[in-house]
Amino acid sequence: MMKLTILGCHSATPRENKHTTSQLLEIKGHLFLIDCGEGTQIQLRKAKIKFARIQHIFISHLHGDHFYGLIGLISTFRLLGRTAPLYIYGPKGIQEIIQLQLKLAKSWTDYPLHFQELTRSDSQCIFDEDDIQVETIPLDHRVYTNGFLFTYKNSLRKINTDACSKRDLKPYHFNQLQKGQSITLENGERIENEELTFSSEAAKRYAFCSDTAYSKSIISQIEGADLLYHEATFLQQHEGLAKSTKHSTAQQAAEIAKSAGVKQLVLGHFSSRYKTKEGFLSEATPIFQAVELAEDFKTFSI
Amino acid sequence: MMKLTILGCHSATPRENKHTTSQLLEIKGHLFLIDCGEGTQIQLRKAKIKFARIQHIFISHLHGDHFYGLIGLISTFRLLGRTAPLYIYGPKGIQEIIQLQLKLAKSWTDYPLHFQELTRSDSQCIFDEDDIQVETIPLDHRVYTNGFLFTYKNSLRKINTDACSKRDLKPYHFNQLQKGQSITLENGERIENEELTFSSEAAKRYAFCSDTAYSKSIISQIEGADLLYHEATFLQQHEGLAKSTKHSTAQQAAEIAKSAGVKQLVLGHFSSRYKTKEGFLSEATPIFQAVELAEDFKTFSI
Repeated sequence: MMKLTILGCHSATPRENKHTTSQLLEIKGHLFLIDCGEGTQIQLRKAKIKFARIQHIFISHLHGDHFYGLIGLISTFRLLGRTAPLYIYGPKGIQEIIQLQLKLAKSWTDYPLHFQELTRSDSQCIFDEDDIQVETIPLDHRVYTNGFLFTYKNSLRKINTDACSKRDLKPYHFNQLQKGQSITLENGERIENEELTFSSEAAKRYAFCSDTAYSKSIISQIEGADLLYHEATFLQQHEGLAKSTKHSTAQQAAEIAKSAGVKQLVLGHFSSRYKTKEGFLSEATPIFQAVELAEDFKTFSI
Repeated sequence: MMKLTILGCHSATPRENKHTTSQLLEIKGHLFLIDCGEGTQIQLRKAKIKFARIQHIFISHLHGDHFYGLIGLISTFRLLGRTAPLYIYGPKGIQEIIQLQLKLAKSWTDYPLHFQELTRSDSQCIFDEDDIQVETIPLDHRVYTNGFLFTYKNSLRKINTDACSKRDLKPYHFNQLQKGQSITLENGERIENEELTFSSEAAKRYAFCSDTAYSKSIISQIEGADLLYHEATFLQQHEGLAKSTKHSTAQQAAEIAKSAGVKQLVLGHFSSRYKTKEGFLSEATPIFQAVELAEDFKTFSI
């Protein structure tokens, strides 16, 4: 299972109750931070997330509303005595920005700080560990930008408890069964794995796509995703502005979700020009029904 | 008159209700921002300050809790369509940090952005306009750090309303009198300025001193200031820690205030290790009575 927590979902300028982009994705005990707008560390505290456990931070692009909170979080980790390494994935230049600030403050981190700078215009796998994969989703924005596709494929087979209860199994048999091995009972009887297990769960996929112009080129990569977060900075009445600033409208996001056949769509990155968010929902729903609006601290289970 | 608004007064890491250093000083319609920790722009909105009017920002040093909010504020000014120039005064390196981020975001400001980088170890006047002067106060910290001394000397003489009411004065006479000129009535009678005015108000002085080790060298410069904000990161029980990290205790701050004979002392930059702030007050008061604790959104009139 994946659990997504929205920490901020507004565009451009942070306001009292409108925080800029950041999300926390929890998979199998790993905490992945996606984007890190100004004030993200405070949002993490408010959400009562044990954020020292974050080891991997993915930054989509170098516009301020997606990463101005990163240097503060890195500094706070140092002040809290962190020793665990921290891995940062983001566009080329991010390392120079962070290191320059640490150097001028004479505040090098005591923990290992690793950067993987991204420059490729095609998708690449940047994380592959513990049944979890993260691939970049090349997006079309004013500066070099990537979305991220998280895939979790639990490789362990599921125990068929009914079938198992009829056999005299020892604890170590369950480990073997989950791993797909056939077992031999203490009386010498061999049982095929398939008799006592179900196939492992289907992979879960979460696609994060912010910021981007309306772009059909992402559809094939995110096809069938369980959850798609797609930016909807504007409403259709400002389609021209969306085009010129390389953002999307709610309607366009819904069309992407529909074409990709995803299971659920979450809209975010709302422009502060709109007093309420209802318009985003009413514009997207006729095209794609399984849609929700992001909201600070809202969570989604995948 | 000067009006000081505390926007943040806690050290090191921002928390939900503990913001890092930033202050707004209003003098004669000018809004001066002093330090700019992460989230300062949100604090400015919360305080309902028309922050687009800020034209001068003074940064004491390049530790994150004093300037990580600066790039966000600069970006927000751009997004809000600012055209007025912005002047930033801070340690050498600040220009490189800001410009690198603007360059990588392809988001140059549309308004003129001027930097005055500070490197001198002696005090210098960095602002002198409209009867307002700002001088650096060299401080002793782990990195190059300046406090700032704001002096406002209203050069206009005060009208003696009693004396004036007995004369047949025209409106233009009052302007002349405020400027210190003697006047000639329409009947040809000349009246000396001193007969109709009082001398102008004494200069008002505000000294901002954060972060610094206990340092007597600042005393002569801030002598007799109307208000002194002095950091008190620690209590005396952690004097050793204060010394090794080049911070001050509440007692030390009070001793500086006493030696300098300032009129009022405000303590701030509290370490988050202390659950309550009472200790700072009880430690400082026996040495210097006119002491208050800083608090987010608290204001002080000078």
